[in-house]
Amino acid sequence: MDCAIVPLKRYPDLNLIETVDFFYPLVDNPFLMGKIAFANVVSDLCSIGVTKIDHVNILISSPTEFTEEERDIILPLLLKGIAEHANSIKVKFSLIKVSLNPWCIIGGIASTVCKVDEIVPPVGAKAGNVLILTKPIGTQLATSVFNWMDKKANQYEALKSEWNSEDSLEEAIKKVYARAIKSMSHLNHNGAVLMHKYGATSATDVTGFGLIGHAQNLATNQDESVDFIIDKLAVIEGIPEMAKILSHEKKLLSGKAVETSGGLLLTIPSENAGGFCDEYLELNGFSAHVVGKVLAGKRLAKIVDDPEIIEVDL
Amino acid sequence: MDCAIVPLKRYPDLNLIETVDFFYPLVDNPFLMGKIAFANVVSDLCSIGVTKIDHVNILISSPTEFTEEERDIILPLLLKGIAEHANSIKVKFSLIKVSLNPWCIIGGIASTVCKVDEIVPPVGAKAGNVLILTKPIGTQLATSVFNWMDKKANQYEALKSEWNSEDSLEEAIKKVYARAIKSMSHLNHNGAVLMHKYGATSATDVTGFGLIGHAQNLATNQDESVDFIIDKLAVIEGIPEMAKILSHEKKLLSGKAVETSGGLLLTIPSENAGGFCDEYLELNGFSAHVVGKVLAGKRLAKIVDDPEIIEVDL
Repeated sequence: MDCAIVPLKRYPDLNLIETVDFFYPLVDNPFLMGKIAFANVVSDLCSIGVTKIDHVNILISSPTEFTEEERDIILPLLLKGIAEHANSIKVKFSLIKVSLNPWCIIGGIASTVCKVDEIVPPVGAKAGNVLILTKPIGTQLATSVFNWMDKKANQYEALKSEWNSEDSLEEAIKKVYARAIKSMSHLNHNGAVLMHKYGATSATDVTGFGLIGHAQNLATNQDESVDFIIDKLAVIEGIPEMAKILSHEKKLLSGKAVETSGGLLLTIPSENAGGFCDEYLELNGFSAHVVGKVLAGKRLAKIVDDPEIIEVDL
Repeated sequence: MDCAIVPLKRYPDLNLIETVDFFYPLVDNPFLMGKIAFANVVSDLCSIGVTKIDHVNILISSPTEFTEEERDIILPLLLKGIAEHANSIKVKFSLIKVSLNPWCIIGGIASTVCKVDEIVPPVGAKAGNVLILTKPIGTQLATSVFNWMDKKANQYEALKSEWNSEDSLEEAIKKVYARAIKSMSHLNHNGAVLMHKYGATSATDVTGFGLIGHAQNLATNQDESVDFIIDKLAVIEGIPEMAKILSHEKKLLSGKAVETSGGLLLTIPSENAGGFCDEYLELNGFSAHVVGKVLAGKRLAKIVDDPEIIEVDL
């Protein structure tokens, strides 16, 4: 389970739902990093359909190697990104600064108090449902290639030696990086709203365990004995080509690449999938995709051999 | 304020109250460290009189320098200490492991959902109230001298050269250290229960800002314009002598020494102070002490020159 759901003994109708998430910064723009961190912290709540979040505690440890000046510039920018997201979905947040630490840690705790009917428990997938993924995968490689280019690392040189597209490699890398940032910093909140509207039956968010890891966790949780068969992969546009050159293709196409602040992977009655995806595009400016189906089975998640690749621009 | 108090828009009678606290380990017994960490995490809730805590998320980062074996021994012991405390006050907790970090961080988030009348807002001190401190100060020096002895540091040698008590220095250090651990690992939960029973009018817990820092914060918060005059200091038995030799006396007696998982500093009608202290001793096995008074004033906290020292055994 992505969240702790605590039934409140003294208020039997209500549950306290909390999620905690932390990571290390992975983009060097503090404003965008703030947005990614906030999106990541609230994502677990969104994945169970929570749309009204009561409070977020943001935790930041300022790395020991920062000068005071660096700290005074970077922290306010981080906070600006966080505040912009928090305001957009009307969430109160508090900032807690952990005292010094060798590494910068950024994360927090998102909490809500709600009735059971306000959430979509991640257990209700039915045979015949389809699987929707609301953000493309490929964030890890997209951020890595940008860093490799920045540091002129071996992987960048390898990519360069095999590169023969029309776009210059530098342009291509900047584009995949920009798409990844847009994806990672995007809130899963609209997705949660649409889960209710279109009757999603279960969901998870795709982060550190990769698409297949989270799909398998979700399959394991189901009340009905079903399998999740993924036959399409929505991937950040431009990433499949780079993955091929860098021998990263197998990891990517088997869903094992780590994702940061990824999308919702949800199950939904097939007749509602079109409505969900149309309205998702309208609200978010980029597409969600049907990536597979739910069949009677043994609570297993599988990606078929040679899945269809859908390249997603954002 | 020690806690975030978030009125719940959708449930107007209720508030979500959360506190977050982190630190680095300061004793080398993981079981006791677990108890200290838990006591520290819930202490802020106790300081506003919360006695029913709905959920605690415990966060631990396993330091990169640990071997797998060290981790497999230390983490379960930490958890055992945490679980023992959590069970004793019937609190559910979840464990969240932050991935690797150079330093070990231990802490967490304590949450409760409650009505306003279940808390003691830290704003109600009245002129004529007295100040009670529920744990002695001196934890920083007590843990430091133990570490200095362990490492045969200069400070230990300085202490040794001036030492002329009956107890051997080694014995004396072991005693102050044991008292500090008992104090730090003690829950402020009983204190919170007694705050309600004896009509405490405000409280804070004494931690990183030292006694005077927290006293001043609390004074600043008050609705009435009052001063807090501290004329007695409850100190861990044995610490005043060591502080004198080590030139730490001024810091200690001015309340500026950092405390870890310290006691509650609370204001209470003077006629109720005796009852509070008697029952506190009965429940906890060691004494709370009246350490000062609340006078009409300018929201200032002061420790008088040459305060009376009460040495507290635990």
